[in-house]
Amino acid sequence: MAISFNSTREPETASLNTTPRGSRLHIAIFGRRNAGKSSLINALTNQRIAIVSDVPGTTTDPVYKSMEILPLGPVVIIDTAGIDDVGELGSLRVEKAMGVLAKTDIVLLVVDPEKGVGAYERDLIRRAEGVPVLGVVNKIDRYPDAANENWSERLGIPVVAVSALTGQGIEKLKQELIARAPRDWTAPTIVGDLISPGDTVVLVVPIDLAAPKGRLILPQVQTIRDILDHDAMALVVKERELKKALAGLKQPPRLVITDSQAFLKVAADTPPHVPLTSFSILFARYKGDLPALAAGALAVDDLKPGDRVLIAEACTHHRVEDDIGTVKIPRWLRQRVGGALEFKWVSGMELPADLADYKLVIHCGACMINRREMLHRLMQARSAGVPVVNYGVLIAHIHGILKRALEPFPAARQIIEEGEGL
Amino acid sequence: MAISFNSTREPETASLNTTPRGSRLHIAIFGRRNAGKSSLINALTNQRIAIVSDVPGTTTDPVYKSMEILPLGPVVIIDTAGIDDVGELGSLRVEKAMGVLAKTDIVLLVVDPEKGVGAYERDLIRRAEGVPVLGVVNKIDRYPDAANENWSERLGIPVVAVSALTGQGIEKLKQELIARAPRDWTAPTIVGDLISPGDTVVLVVPIDLAAPKGRLILPQVQTIRDILDHDAMALVVKERELKKALAGLKQPPRLVITDSQAFLKVAADTPPHVPLTSFSILFARYKGDLPALAAGALAVDDLKPGDRVLIAEACTHHRVEDDIGTVKIPRWLRQRVGGALEFKWVSGMELPADLADYKLVIHCGACMINRREMLHRLMQARSAGVPVVNYGVLIAHIHGILKRALEPFPAARQIIEEGEGL
Repeated sequence: MAISFNSTREPETASLNTTPRGSRLHIAIFGRRNAGKSSLINALTNQRIAIVSDVPGTTTDPVYKSMEILPLGPVVIIDTAGIDDVGELGSLRVEKAMGVLAKTDIVLLVVDPEKGVGAYERDLIRRAEGVPVLGVVNKIDRYPDAANENWSERLGIPVVAVSALTGQGIEKLKQELIARAPRDWTAPTIVGDLISPGDTVVLVVPIDLAAPKGRLILPQVQTIRDILDHDAMALVVKERELKKALAGLKQPPRLVITDSQAFLKVAADTPPHVPLTSFSILFARYKGDLPALAAGALAVDDLKPGDRVLIAEACTHHRVEDDIGTVKIPRWLRQRVGGALEFKWVSGMELPADLADYKLVIHCGACMINRREMLHRLMQARSAGVPVVNYGVLIAHIHGILKRALEPFPAARQIIEEGEGL
Repeated sequence: MAISFNSTREPETASLNTTPRGSRLHIAIFGRRNAGKSSLINALTNQRIAIVSDVPGTTTDPVYKSMEILPLGPVVIIDTAGIDDVGELGSLRVEKAMGVLAKTDIVLLVVDPEKGVGAYERDLIRRAEGVPVLGVVNKIDRYPDAANENWSERLGIPVVAVSALTGQGIEKLKQELIARAPRDWTAPTIVGDLISPGDTVVLVVPIDLAAPKGRLILPQVQTIRDILDHDAMALVVKERELKKALAGLKQPPRLVITDSQAFLKVAADTPPHVPLTSFSILFARYKGDLPALAAGALAVDDLKPGDRVLIAEACTHHRVEDDIGTVKIPRWLRQRVGGALEFKWVSGMELPADLADYKLVIHCGACMINRREMLHRLMQARSAGVPVVNYGVLIAHIHGILKRALEPFPAARQIIEEGEGL
């Protein structure tokens, strides 16, 4: 019986599946038949109507499935056929497995505690050389003692114990997946999924003292490049020239993207029917998990005087006068809350262990860390039950522009709308 | 009597004098009255109608003059009043001199051989600390022996002997000026002098395998920034979208700038009345001396089989298959000349001493060296009497597109037109 998947979750945009396969994280699932590979995929992707079969599949060809795992974003799951025997991989299976491994970023090796591990698992781990292999001991709902066995020592790889059925351990598994993503792993596109070939996108780039001498900042350059990569056109202007730029186009642009600091002026000059967002929002999505950060913005409204707030920056930097993290944001929040808050600042590569003691984490824009690291931090906070917002999303919220800036992102915008409805 | 200057030379563009003063090289001229400061300025700038006075001036305030020194480009000459006495600087003069020095990149200290040097010169050199001082012994037409005196040893600074009257030593002086320019000295603008506020400039940026992952190359970014700095708008497109981009504008753009490799397609898609140039041409001007490089392109047509050609690259780089400097250019030139040429390749920071033995120097695009270094090299070749062309200008010439690409640059274009007329 063929296994098919139908996503029940609205992706960020309708054209998500046009993302080129090459830039998605490729996760291959190996394991013996009935180890629970399909249930695990469902648990990772929150699929509700997926069909899970107890009848062993008949195909031996791996199936490539484009889907979304939150907060990882779009991925390709390579679903390999399970095997029955406990011996080493046969030559045909070896050939197929090697073909899969060549395209894989991370291997999930699913283990059935009832059947244990043997030559098959060891053979696969040996052949995967260079590709990180993460063991997943499934069915710990049925075999609770299995979670305490020393699988990791026996296989020589890290192992996570999960129940695909109850969801136990799935968050931890996602964290481990993120930790093993390639260093240069990025989301498939910054803006390409929001536009069509031939579209014009207007980029508003204020030139002030903070702009680097004779250059543009990297997120602006990356956005222009992404627009070109999607066969569209980038019209780059300062905020003062925006009106003139729009007036010079025969058709309105598909999208306007502005630096956050010019948002209010740009919003006033952009016709209401033209979608508008900011570089900060685009990069919050590109580097992290936009719906989670939108939820974090709502948590700002629940702050009360005396609450503890952690301000986390990924790197140490020279603090200018009126520094955003140490001066501006604390000032805004105190005014909003109407009283003192207990701020703590951290910078560097790790979030503190006492995350759960904070009411909110406010994270920097993550310009110096990669998507893998930012998602790792978001997962840490999620595990601790603390909402996280980043600078860009927070500032948009404080200025009352977040809802308009999230218009192109229905899932994140819905969170704000639901928050407003409460 | 006030001294005034009227340029007889057509600058590259009419709006040259709108160049912000801050980005021009500032050269202050100090020296005793009648040492020949004004004549020296005339000699450096090739001014023909400037008025040179033998009557000592009465003002003591320095005069700032924006003018062009080829091949340095637009500069500010700070013309200080001469002094009569031979003592140290008086307190008012010290104050004025210090004010000038604070704005100065290079000091030219003009010495009259008849009067010699004394406390005035030594005092000024001492006070100029941090600002390079170049001695200029003038009037060697009248005092030929002065060129052989040990001025440099006596003053502790480098000294060039010149005759402002005959022009002797002026080339050498320009070389020394270039050598002392600040490391980060650039031309005042890449494209800003060709456009007006509110203009739209179309940039054609092919995305091929040579494009850096997820970015644009630096000259493209610098050009966008320069357009924004001049209150204009940059419409960035791939060559395939150019036609659509032009069709979407209510008014034709002021200028189209393309990557050289797409020039022929872009020229076909750009209406004849819209000026068109390439990033290579813009940066040949920005980094060097465009008229000199245009003259170098013409020298290609004079090459004969057996001629020696020097191919100079400023840095060593990984050579790809079909490398431009070692494979493509030699192949083109052999085909054009109809026989073998004797090529020599050099890379690194110095041009060889035997420059005069070559019929042509072909220089790389200078992406890794600054304007000061590129101009120094151009001057070296000029002294040796060898024409120089760079990769971008040469390729445009070989492809028959140089004349169109030089349309926005009358001085350089005139050289090509005159060359064609011969």
